[in-house]
Amino acid sequence: MMEETGSRPLDALNAARNKTVMIELKNGFSYIGKLKAFDIHINIVLHEAEEHHNGEVRRKLGTVFIRGDTITIISPS
Amino acid sequence: MMEETGSRPLDALNAARNKTVMIELKNGFSYIGKLKAFDIHINIVLHEAEEHHNGEVRRKLGTVFIRGDTITIISPS
Amino acid sequence: MMEETGSRPLDALNAARNKTVMIELKNGFSYIGKLKAFDIHINIVLHEAEEHHNGEVRRKLGTVFIRGDTITIISPS
Amino acid sequence: MMEETGSRPLDALNAARNKTVMIELKNGFSYIGKLKAFDIHINIVLHEAEEHHNGEVRRKLGTVFIRGDTITIISPS
Amino acid sequence: MMEETGSRPLDALNAARNKTVMIELKNGFSYIGKLKAFDIHINIVLHEAEEHHNGEVRRKLGTVFIRGDTITIISPS
Amino acid sequence: MMEETGSRPLDALNAARNKTVMIELKNGFSYIGKLKAFDIHINIVLHEAEEHHNGEVRRKLGTVFIRGDTITIISPS
Amino acid sequence: MMEETGSRPLDALNAARNKTVMIELKNGFSYIGKLKAFDIHINIVLHEAEEHHNGEVRRKLGTVFIRGDTITIISPS
Repeated sequence: MMEETGSRPLDALNAARNKTVMIELKNGFSYIGKLKAFDIHINIVLHEAEEHHNGEVRRKLGTVFIRGDTITIISPS
Repeated sequence: MMEETGSRPLDALNAARNKTVMIELKNGFSYIGKLKAFDIHINIVLHEAEEHHNGEVRRKLGTVFIRGDTITIISPS
Repeated sequence: MMEETGSRPLDALNAARNKTVMIELKNGFSYIGKLKAFDIHINIVLHEAEEHHNGEVRRKLGTVFIRGDTITIISPS
Repeated sequence: MMEETGSRPLDALNAARNKTVMIELKNGFSYIGKLKAFDIHINIVLHEAEEHHNGEVRRKLGTVFIRGDTITIISPS
Repeated sequence: MMEETGSRPLDALNAARNKTVMIELKNGFSYIGKLKAFDIHINIVLHEAEEHHNGEVRRKLGTVFIRGDTITIISPS
Repeated sequence: MMEETGSRPLDALNAARNKTVMIELKNGFSYIGKLKAFDIHINIVLHEAEEHHNGEVRRKLGTVFIRGDTITIISPS
Repeated sequence: MMEETGSRPLDALNAARNKTVMIELKNGFSYIGKLKAFDIHINIVLHEAEEHHNGEVRRKLGTVFIRGDTITIISPS
C-alpha cells in the first residue's frame, strides 16, 4: 500500500489513492480515512474519515478536506 | 454531500457549494454555515454562519469570510 | 450586507465596501469599521475603526491598515 | 491623514507618506514615526521613530526598517 | 553515505536515496527509514520507517510521507 | 546614517551599507555590526558583529549571515 | 573566513564553502561543521557536523542537511 512507482513523493500519494491512510496535523489531531484526492499543496480529501486525538476516536466525519499546510505526516493506517 | 466528482481536493469543495459545512481554524474556533464561495487559497465565504468554541455556539455571524491560511479542516456538518 | 454577487470570496469583500465590518486577528484583537479597500492578500483598510479586545473597545483608531496574513475572519458587524 | 485616493490598501499607505503613523508588530512592540518608504511586502521605513511597549516609550530609534511580515496594523498616530 | 556529488543541498539527498536516514521535525518527533523519494519542497517518502520521540521508538509506520515544511534536519542514521 | 535616497525601503538599507546597524530577531536576540550585504529577502551579512540578549553582549561573532525571515527591525546603532 | 567578495549575502556563504561554520536554528539547536552546499532557500549541507544544545555537544552527526526555513544565523565557528 502506498508503494511509489516513481521517485517523487507525490507518486507515493497517488499509489495510496482509495486506500486507508492516517494523516497527522501540526495541532496533534489525526484523521484516518480513504484517500480520495490530493494536490501539489498536499491539500487532501478523505472519505469515511475518523478524527483521532490522544489515541481515541473523537468524531466520525465522513468526508473531510484537510488543508495541506497543517499536515506533518501521511502514512498507511 | 461534498462528494467529489473528480480527483482534486477543490472538486470536493465545489460539490459542497450551497451546502452546510463545518470549518475548523488553527485557533480552535469553528464555523458552521452554507458554503457560498472559495478560491485556490481556500479563502471561504459562509452564509448563515455560527461561530462555535469548546462545543458551544458563541455567535451568529450571518455572512463570514474566512482567510484560508487559518483553516485546518472542512467537513460537511 | 456583504452579499456576494459571484462565486469568489473576494466578491463578498467587494460587496461589503463602504459598509461596517468586523475583522478578527490571529492575536485576539478585532477591528470594527468601514471597509474602504482590500487586495488579493486580504490587506484591508478600514475607516472610523475601533479596536476591540476581550469584548471591550480599546481604542478609536480612525483609519487603520490591517496586514492580510494576521486576519482570521471578516464579517458584517 | 492617510486618506486613500483610490480603492487599494497601498493607496492608503501612500497617502500617509511623510506623516506620523503607529505600526504594531506581532511581538507586541509598536513604533511611532514618520512614514518614509514602503513596498508591496509592507516593509516599512520610519524616520524619527520611537519604540513603544506596554504603553511606554522604550527607545528613540531615529530611522528604523520594519520587516513587513512582522506587522499587524498601521494607523495614523 | 549521503555524500554529495555536486555543490547543491539536494545532491546530498539524492546521494542518500535508498539509504537509511534520520529526519527530525519541528514538533520534536523524528523518523528513521529508507529514503525513497524527495522533491524541491523537501517533501520526503521513507520506507520501513520508525517514529521516535524522546529517544524511544513510538511506532513502526512502514511507508511515510513527510511534508517538507515540518522538517528541521535530515541526516544519515 | 541610513538616509534613504529614494522612496523604497531597500534604499534605506543600501544607504546603511558599511555602517553600524542593530538587527533584532523574532527570538529576542539582536545583532550589532557593520552592514555588508543584503538582498530582497532581507537576508543580511554583518561584519564585526556582536550578539546581544537582554541588554548584554553575549558573543562576538565576527561575520554573521542572518536569515531575513527571522528579522523584525533594522536600525542604526 | 566567510569574507564576501561581492555585495550579496549568498556571496558570503559561498566564501565559507569547505570552512567550519556554526548554524543556529529557531528551535535553539545549533550545528557546527564544514559548509559543503547551500541554495537560495538557505538549505544547507554540513560535513563532520556536531549538534549542540545549551552549550554542550549533543551528537556527532557526520553529514547533515538543514532546511533553510529553520535557520536564524550562520557564522564562522
